[in-house]
Amino acid sequence: MLEKTTRMNYLFDFYQSLLTPKQKSYMSYYYLDDFSLGEIAEEYHISRQAVYDNIKRTETMLEEYEEKLLLFHKFLERQKLIAKLKELSLVSNEKEELQEVIQLLEKLE
Amino acid sequence: MLEKTTRMNYLFDFYQSLLTPKQKSYMSYYYLDDFSLGEIAEEYHISRQAVYDNIKRTETMLEEYEEKLLLFHKFLERQKLIAKLKELSLVSNEKEELQEVIQLLEKLE
Repeated sequence: MLEKTTRMNYLFDFYQSLLTPKQKSYMSYYYLDDFSLGEIAEEYHISRQAVYDNIKRTETMLEEYEEKLLLFHKFLERQKLIAKLKELSLVSNEKEELQEVIQLLEKLE
Repeated sequence: MLEKTTRMNYLFDFYQSLLTPKQKSYMSYYYLDDFSLGEIAEEYHISRQAVYDNIKRTETMLEEYEEKLLLFHKFLERQKLIAKLKELSLVSNEKEELQEVIQLLEKLE
């Protein structure tokens, strides 16, 4: 479950601006603050099932946005290239390799 | 008008996956293929006004997506940093400056 939580945290981070205020609140309580479904239900005076359904729908929406825009995927790719750049910038005489990584970074756009 | 056309081309490029097939077609004819509103209307057997309204609404949607996700804005920022990296990678003894630019690139994420 940790892997899914981590992924959802990232997807929420990238796409939360596209969610409704209610979706944002539920997701934020559930994924960022680690509230249980029951606790969120109590907070909003609705059923546990309603919270569950809303969160499931939002998760699906986030995955659909990622399928369309690939922001998380590209972020991970860029992170790898930036790490490589950092490494190369520490050593001298690696100019060619450095330039190759910069080109890869450019292609990603 | 050229500036708006260029901007719309970019926004369309970044967010077209979030549009409906019809929105995509009209925008593509109008902005990429430079068809007139009248020509698109003829192609789809609808009024010129209907095409105009659809394109205006789509433009507004694209600007709203950009306001929320800033993909075009961040793309431009990264382009500047990548250009700077390229420049620095050509000269030696600029390691510190190179590392600073890499850090800026990282912060942008």
